[in-house]
Amino acid sequence: MTHFPLNTQGTRFDVTGVGNAIVDILARVDDAFLAEQQMPKGGMSLIDAARAEALYAALGQCTECSGGSVANTVAALASLGARTAYMGRVHDDTLGGIFRHDMRTTGVSFDVPAAKTGLPTARCFVCVTPDAERTMNTFLGACTEFAPEDVDEAVIAESALLYLEGYLWDQPAAKEGIRKAIRAAKGAGRHIAFTLSDTFCVERHREEFRALLKSDIDILFANEHEAKALAQQENLAEASKWIASQVKLLVVTRGAEGADVWLNGDGFHVEAEPVQRVVDLTGAGDLFAAGFLYGLSRGESLREAAQMGHRCAGEIIQQIGARAEQPLNRLVA
Amino acid sequence: MTHFPLNTQGTRFDVTGVGNAIVDILARVDDAFLAEQQMPKGGMSLIDAARAEALYAALGQCTECSGGSVANTVAALASLGARTAYMGRVHDDTLGGIFRHDMRTTGVSFDVPAAKTGLPTARCFVCVTPDAERTMNTFLGACTEFAPEDVDEAVIAESALLYLEGYLWDQPAAKEGIRKAIRAAKGAGRHIAFTLSDTFCVERHREEFRALLKSDIDILFANEHEAKALAQQENLAEASKWIASQVKLLVVTRGAEGADVWLNGDGFHVEAEPVQRVVDLTGAGDLFAAGFLYGLSRGESLREAAQMGHRCAGEIIQQIGARAEQPLNRLVA
Repeated sequence: MTHFPLNTQGTRFDVTGVGNAIVDILARVDDAFLAEQQMPKGGMSLIDAARAEALYAALGQCTECSGGSVANTVAALASLGARTAYMGRVHDDTLGGIFRHDMRTTGVSFDVPAAKTGLPTARCFVCVTPDAERTMNTFLGACTEFAPEDVDEAVIAESALLYLEGYLWDQPAAKEGIRKAIRAAKGAGRHIAFTLSDTFCVERHREEFRALLKSDIDILFANEHEAKALAQQENLAEASKWIASQVKLLVVTRGAEGADVWLNGDGFHVEAEPVQRVVDLTGAGDLFAAGFLYGLSRGESLREAAQMGHRCAGEIIQQIGARAEQPLNRLVA
Repeated sequence: MTHFPLNTQGTRFDVTGVGNAIVDILARVDDAFLAEQQMPKGGMSLIDAARAEALYAALGQCTECSGGSVANTVAALASLGARTAYMGRVHDDTLGGIFRHDMRTTGVSFDVPAAKTGLPTARCFVCVTPDAERTMNTFLGACTEFAPEDVDEAVIAESALLYLEGYLWDQPAAKEGIRKAIRAAKGAGRHIAFTLSDTFCVERHREEFRALLKSDIDILFANEHEAKALAQQENLAEASKWIASQVKLLVVTRGAEGADVWLNGDGFHVEAEPVQRVVDLTGAGDLFAAGFLYGLSRGESLREAAQMGHRCAGEIIQQIGARAEQPLNRLVA
C-alpha cells in the first residue's frame, strides 16, 4: 500500500484553502438553453456584470447555495472532521454574508474581512442539464480584488497543506496574494496541493500552470479533460504519465469510471462505487478532493484516500449544489 | 361529478395572490435542535431581527430559495400554465431581487415596487428534520410594511380569483391592504380563496378568520390541524362539517391520506397517490392549492382538481424547497 501522509503533527490546521469565494445560483436548463446562451457545456466561463444580469433574467426558478471550488473542498473537509481554514474575498453584502455563514457553520476558520468598497460578492450561475452535467458562468466581482493582505501567512505556516485552485489565476491582481501564500507554505516546509479547475482555465494559463507544477506543487488534482489540456496530449495515459513526471502525486478523476492515482511516476486505478441517482454533478471534483485530502491527513493509504474521495463525490452528486446538506463524517467513520 | 368552475372569461388573470413575500433559508436539523431552539415542530413562529441572527448562526449549511405561501402557490400556478399576478412587499435588496426574479421568470406578473426605505426583505428559516417535516421561523421584515398602495385594484378586478393567506393577518398594518383587495374582488364579482396557513396562525386570529369565512370567502384551504383549530373541535369530521356550513367550498388536506372536498356542506374524499421518496415537506400545502385552483380555472371536476393538487404536492415534496425545480405543466398535460 502506497502512502503520502501529510505531516499534521503540531499544526493548527490540516488544510488551508485559498480560492474564489462564490455563491452559486443554480437552475435546471436544457441543452438548447446552453446553445442559445453560447455556454460551452461542462465548462466554466467568466462573465461581466451586464452579462450576469442578462443571464439571470433568462434563467428559470433558481436555488442559491454557497460554492467556490476550493471553498467547497474545505467546507467538506471540515464536515468530514478535518481542521481547516479558508482565505478568499467577499463583499460586505447579503451573498457575502451567506458565504461566510456557510463556511463558519461547517467549522471552517474564515477571517478575511468583508470588503466595504469595490465590487459585490462573486456569483456563479450553474446551469444543470437533464444529464446532471453542470455548466457555469461566473461573475468574479469581489474576488478580483483579492489582495496580499487577505493572505494570513501565519495560518498557512501552521497548516499541513495549502490548497489552491487554478481559477485563482483568472484574476491578475490575485497573483501577488497567491505567491505570498506559496512562499508561506514552502517557508514552513508544508505541502501544496493544486486543482486545475477547468479545461478552459488550463487553456488560459497552461504555461504558468506547468511552471507552477514543476516548482511548487506536491499534489495535483485534474479531471481527464484538464489533464489532456495541460499535457496537450489526446491520449489520457500518455497525458497522465507526462504530468506524473512533473509532480510527486497526481490524481486524475474520471467520473463514474473512478480515478487514477500516480505517485512518483507510477500509476494505479481506484474504482468508484456506483451511485443510485445522479441529480447534479456540481461539486463532484471538489468533494472528491475533500475525501482524498481527508484520507491523507489521517495517514490512510492512497487507495483508501481515493475511496474516501469517491464516497464524498458520490454523496454530493445525489443532491443539488456543492455543499453537503448532511454532515459528511458518517462517510469516513 | 361536482364542479366549482372559476369564471375566467374575459379576465386578464386566472388567479391573483396577495401574501407575504419571503425568501426561505433551508437547513437540515434534528429534533434535538428544534427542542433546543424551542421551535414547535411543524409550525411557523414569528421572530424578530435579533432572533433571526441568532438562529441563522446556529443553523448548519443552508440553501436559499424563494418562498412565501401564496407566492409559492401562484408561482406553481404559473408553471402549470395559469395566468397569475402577485402582490406583496419586498425591500430593494438582494433577497428582494431573488424573490422578484423567481416570480417573474415563472411567468407571474409582479409589479409592486421594492421598498427603498424600511426593513429588509422577509426571510423564513425552514428547518427540515429527518422525517421530512418542516418547522419555520419567520422574520417578516418588509412584509410588515405592506400597504394599501401595494394593492392594484384593477388587476384584482380583472382576475377570476383572489387568493389570500392567513399569514397576512400577522401584520396589523397589512389589514387595510387586505380589505382593499377584498373590496376590489367583490366589487367585480370575483371569487375569493383563503388558506388558513398554520395552526398557530389560526389560534392568533380565530375570530377574524371565522368572520371572514362567513362574509367574504368562497374557497377555504385548511390542513386537518388548522381545520380542528378553526372549529375548536378535536374530531376532524365534525370540524370539517362545521366549517363546510360556513363556506361554499372547503378543502381539507390530509398529507399522505389525501384530501376531503366539501361543496355546499357535502363532503367526499380524494386519495393521494403514494410518493417514491419524500425529501422535504416544505410547500406541500401550497402546491396542492396550486394544482387544485389550476383544475378549477380549467373547469375540471372537483375530484380531478384535487388529483391535480395531489400531483403537484407529490412533486414538490421530492425536492428541497417550495419552488419546483422543473416546470409543472407536464403534471397536468
